[in-house]
Amino acid sequence: MVDLNSLLYPRSIAVVGASTQPDKVGGMPIRLLRELGYAGRVYPVNPSAAEVQGLRAYGSLADIGEPVDLAIVAVPASASQDVMVQLAGNGTRAAVVFTSGFAEAGEGGMRMQDMLARSARDAGVTLLGPNCLGAMNLRERMFATFSPIPLSGVPPVGEVGLVSQSGAFGAYAYALAREAGLGLSHWVTTGNEAGLQVADVIAWLANDPNTRVILAYIEGCRDGARLRQALGAARAAGKPVVVTKVGTTAAGARSAQSHTASLTGEDAVYQAVFDAYGVHRAHTLEEFFRLGYVLSRGRRPATSQRAAGADGGAVTPLAIVTVSGGVGIMMADRAEQLGLPLPPMPDAAAEALRTAIPFASTANPIDVTGQVVAQPRVFMDALAGVARSGAYGCVAAFLAGGANAPRLWPELQQTIGALSEDANAAPLLLAGIVDDDKRAWLEARGCLVFREPGHAVEAVATLARAAALEGARGAGTSTEAEPRQGMGDARLRNLSREARAQCALSEYEAMRLLADAGVPVAPHGLARDADEAVRIAEGLGYPVVVKLCSREILHKSDVGGVALNLADAQAVREAFARMAQAVALARTESGAPVPFEGVLVARMVRGWGEVMVGVRRDPVFGLVALAGIGGTAVEIFRQTACGLAPLSRAQARAMLCDSRAAALCEGHRGNPEVDLDTAAQVLATVSQLAADLGEHLDTLEINPFIVTAQGLVAADAVVTLRADRCSAS
Amino acid sequence: MVDLNSLLYPRSIAVVGASTQPDKVGGMPIRLLRELGYAGRVYPVNPSAAEVQGLRAYGSLADIGEPVDLAIVAVPASASQDVMVQLAGNGTRAAVVFTSGFAEAGEGGMRMQDMLARSARDAGVTLLGPNCLGAMNLRERMFATFSPIPLSGVPPVGEVGLVSQSGAFGAYAYALAREAGLGLSHWVTTGNEAGLQVADVIAWLANDPNTRVILAYIEGCRDGARLRQALGAARAAGKPVVVTKVGTTAAGARSAQSHTASLTGEDAVYQAVFDAYGVHRAHTLEEFFRLGYVLSRGRRPATSQRAAGADGGAVTPLAIVTVSGGVGIMMADRAEQLGLPLPPMPDAAAEALRTAIPFASTANPIDVTGQVVAQPRVFMDALAGVARSGAYGCVAAFLAGGANAPRLWPELQQTIGALSEDANAAPLLLAGIVDDDKRAWLEARGCLVFREPGHAVEAVATLARAAALEGARGAGTSTEAEPRQGMGDARLRNLSREARAQCALSEYEAMRLLADAGVPVAPHGLARDADEAVRIAEGLGYPVVVKLCSREILHKSDVGGVALNLADAQAVREAFARMAQAVALARTESGAPVPFEGVLVARMVRGWGEVMVGVRRDPVFGLVALAGIGGTAVEIFRQTACGLAPLSRAQARAMLCDSRAAALCEGHRGNPEVDLDTAAQVLATVSQLAADLGEHLDTLEINPFIVTAQGLVAADAVVTLRADRCSAS
Repeated sequence: MVDLNSLLYPRSIAVVGASTQPDKVGGMPIRLLRELGYAGRVYPVNPSAAEVQGLRAYGSLADIGEPVDLAIVAVPASASQDVMVQLAGNGTRAAVVFTSGFAEAGEGGMRMQDMLARSARDAGVTLLGPNCLGAMNLRERMFATFSPIPLSGVPPVGEVGLVSQSGAFGAYAYALAREAGLGLSHWVTTGNEAGLQVADVIAWLANDPNTRVILAYIEGCRDGARLRQALGAARAAGKPVVVTKVGTTAAGARSAQSHTASLTGEDAVYQAVFDAYGVHRAHTLEEFFRLGYVLSRGRRPATSQRAAGADGGAVTPLAIVTVSGGVGIMMADRAEQLGLPLPPMPDAAAEALRTAIPFASTANPIDVTGQVVAQPRVFMDALAGVARSGAYGCVAAFLAGGANAPRLWPELQQTIGALSEDANAAPLLLAGIVDDDKRAWLEARGCLVFREPGHAVEAVATLARAAALEGARGAGTSTEAEPRQGMGDARLRNLSREARAQCALSEYEAMRLLADAGVPVAPHGLARDADEAVRIAEGLGYPVVVKLCSREILHKSDVGGVALNLADAQAVREAFARMAQAVALARTESGAPVPFEGVLVARMVRGWGEVMVGVRRDPVFGLVALAGIGGTAVEIFRQTACGLAPLSRAQARAMLCDSRAAALCEGHRGNPEVDLDTAAQVLATVSQLAADLGEHLDTLEINPFIVTAQGLVAADAVVTLRADRCSAS
Repeated sequence: MVDLNSLLYPRSIAVVGASTQPDKVGGMPIRLLRELGYAGRVYPVNPSAAEVQGLRAYGSLADIGEPVDLAIVAVPASASQDVMVQLAGNGTRAAVVFTSGFAEAGEGGMRMQDMLARSARDAGVTLLGPNCLGAMNLRERMFATFSPIPLSGVPPVGEVGLVSQSGAFGAYAYALAREAGLGLSHWVTTGNEAGLQVADVIAWLANDPNTRVILAYIEGCRDGARLRQALGAARAAGKPVVVTKVGTTAAGARSAQSHTASLTGEDAVYQAVFDAYGVHRAHTLEEFFRLGYVLSRGRRPATSQRAAGADGGAVTPLAIVTVSGGVGIMMADRAEQLGLPLPPMPDAAAEALRTAIPFASTANPIDVTGQVVAQPRVFMDALAGVARSGAYGCVAAFLAGGANAPRLWPELQQTIGALSEDANAAPLLLAGIVDDDKRAWLEARGCLVFREPGHAVEAVATLARAAALEGARGAGTSTEAEPRQGMGDARLRNLSREARAQCALSEYEAMRLLADAGVPVAPHGLARDADEAVRIAEGLGYPVVVKLCSREILHKSDVGGVALNLADAQAVREAFARMAQAVALARTESGAPVPFEGVLVARMVRGWGEVMVGVRRDPVFGLVALAGIGGTAVEIFRQTACGLAPLSRAQARAMLCDSRAAALCEGHRGNPEVDLDTAAQVLATVSQLAADLGEHLDTLEINPFIVTAQGLVAADAVVTLRADRCSAS
């Protein structure tokens, strides 16, 4: 982990390129540090001024006469290399480089940036930027930025750390956080990321005692392993991470490439990474901050109240208490979409409510009706009754404008006050119009407040998910599959010399590899002549499939290299002859004859559906597994699920559910039910094999896995290796 | 259309059950009318007080001595019938009944409500309620409600009319509208809807000169025809309607049933109704009001800039101008999701921007970068350049906190001011933090302002859609199919006596009905004996399909009544013999033998996909057509589309796209492309046949339509008629 203490808790700061004009890039940080109360030493460096904004100026870093923790660099790009030499001489520990004109400005800039990064590394300087808006530590009132935005107000000090690749996004986020009163610990923008990346900041915040929730804005990630490590560190520390990742669509991704030098990966792969580490993803700014608010301030539902949702994610039973039936329905709609169960009101509480208000609805949503105005106590009793009943993980209440009503507020205070002191009471979330002072009072007692009723319900889902992840802290890795060192080499040793030389496996070899790894495959054999083909077919029992085995001919169906459903020896012989002839006619790209490697004879597997599974190499995040329904449906509905290999069985199961492939196992249309965990285990085993092959593997595809009464059976497999890694085996 | 003038523009108001205590249900309206400046006459009716809140009280309505326009009724449910008699005697035109304890309180209440509705109708009194929160006319300061909420402030008078079935929702919406500064014309809550329904209010607002946009909250609709008529009236008047309809999920729908006496229909059917009338649907309160804001204040993109999106909906080319690359990407992501094209910046404007800021991105999103601070004029020139270029329907700009910056604001004022006077300039939407006074200035010049960047993009999609609908005003009906009177009777006259007696068509009859209506069906014939079956098969050419024809045996495959892919006369004879035997063994529910009606012999249609089409009767909205991919896929992905029958070809086409069935026509996997309009016309023809059958029809299902090179061909059809309407034919 990169140490950011010198960057974010500096005892002294030099401003290189310090300006006497406070609104210039080199002047603003001095103004901010002085006006807003930074307690450390500030050294303006300016060769042509004796004094800068009332501070003694230094001609060079050397003149300061002591090492400084942090240097803020605001000199032209061309001078940056020289400054880095000075920093090395001074023993400066960290540098924030505002300057633009580096990688974002073309090839020349890219070269300068590489040099800057190299000299910072050599000098042991932690580098933020270039082309960034800087960093702040709100607690220490440390403002290493040239944005004037802190002059118009500073958000409260709090436990949310914010890191943004984009400066403009960071500034806007700062303003919105201030407006929403969201308490921040640190604020960091990483710009061109020549040194520090968003991932480094996340990893450091995961260990910062003043940060409890991490908000990150990402345009693209160049070092997938670093990001995964950082997210893993945050999870291990029990700190929720909220990410906004833009470029989710083709249009967005195109702009991301033109906007920064970073690689915008396929969105589904990012989502798989976020899912694997329990990251909360926000798609709007409003959601970004709302998640920050919920996760930093919200009480978690009790362990005893957490359950698994349909897709294996954590949910918790919810009570909705409302003064408006209509709004209660809106909230119930949202709860159902999020998979939150709405168990009915316990009998005692229901009885009490019905006695007080005969027309009240004691189903869940619990509708106390407009009678709340006349009988506020009944509403409060219902609220306290369900919160204490032990039947719910959270209680979401809609009170319209009620909290502000002079008759209701004291009653609400009394109820919330008592519940906040009761460790067994379920956390409460309130939706309605609430004045700022009352809102602050409620929040201080752990009661979150929302304007939009649906947001209170969404917060419950968020808190259930966060609680499950925080609860699994430490035990985190146990639910995950891990690559096994050396297994890949062992598996590859069994391959033919040809396979290793050409970096491609014939289908027979691919099937063997799968079978060795424990993946169910169609019973099969390799035949070199027609007699052998018939012998194998008779051993397996008809009908059989005959497929051409060749490393050279990739599209075997194009040359008649696939014969399905062969019913007798005659048909097998004919198929063999056709394929042998096709190979004899074929030529390699260089015009050479194609060697005949034989045909694969396999039992014709009968089932009622096809699942496709693939593992491919993502340039940023490595091996990624994909699963979905095979055949025409996948092309039409494009509903596939993605996960990082190796997958745990639970992750594989979630992927089968998300891609709807699980529906093929449910036993519709007279088909028997197939155990979903067993099917998931097959997928996990495939991903484990891919992970074992590790660096050697290029792609592995099984299309289709046939869904049969005995479970998934691989009927076709393609495995290709990476040319540059083949020799290593 | 029901006339609401007496309800919403009353010259005099009687409050029956008037209370001397201003915070009681019978006291609050008097307080509101007096304190907030209602100019008409107010008559408290209270038999036991001489004066009520400073006004002379009347012992009964008769004592008033003149007919009043509106009576506000706040007496117990049991007394309401008596009050209605008094209203009739007085000649009162409209009544708002606050009282609860009617339909929502069980059977007794339901009976009282029916009586109330009947006497109101007999007396010619327009009835709002019971169990409602009343109504307001903001312009006339007419507050016929017992909610104290207007005491704490009144929203500005404006052109948005709001109608809500739920009182509590209405009150909350009122408070949020006030807070957002959204100008309202009228506010109406309909409660139990014994008289006026939400639909009646929509229809009246469609003709109210003071209302331009209609916001409606609906829990359930009991009279589908009335709602459709109202939505049609609004569309004809060119007034956008925004609807929040709760109960979208099973959980929500269950609560809706317990909350009101209204029928909550299947959500997809409501959506089909909303789609058919161009209703804007909101799923959150925030969206409800945002749509109200956008539609009431937003300038529409020019006609020349409107295009058709992938699904046939209206879109418009958008320019995104941003000071943050990251936020630009977020906006581009949203634009792509909404199908808004982002054409590149015209050359001249791009050239000018690149000259001023070499690192600026002139792709779209157009990223002026943080240089906006140093060079505000460049941003303004880019904005004006794209707005005037004629290449875009709208311009969405992200300016972060820029509008509030002292150096930027005058420049922005100058630019927006000039653009607002240029009729050829594209409408501008701004995202960023903007102070209230500046925001008001911008809005007054037609420039909408948002906090969330994505909302500016969503607004563009909304405005494009609204503009298309408003543009089609009057011509509205020409794009729609209409049921044709009398056609159904003619079609049914050709049916056998048995079909009419049993309200069910044999498959042969169903196929004939389709063929007569112009729907392509598999060539076929009806065979009474084996020889005839073979003769027909040989006429058609092998392979053929043989299916049992029977009105009694609904699940013919269960008794071996379907034989596919028969290759010769022998196979046809065998199939015939099997089916004849199955019929001989079968018995009706009452134990009677099943008559043999023959077998259908049809050509085996070969294709590469199956589309299912069905028409069923929705209890609220009538005939609804459903389309989707047939076979297993539809069960797994459940992606079907729904529309009101009869469908226009454009509607049918949109349904094929929405359900992904259109993908089968795209010519993948070596299949030829099938003309989508021709396929859509088949769907439209089926829906037209269903509409012609009208009241006679129960269900019509074609599953599958086979997708062939010649287009869709029906291979199976089921038609059932309604028992109570059969005799009529």
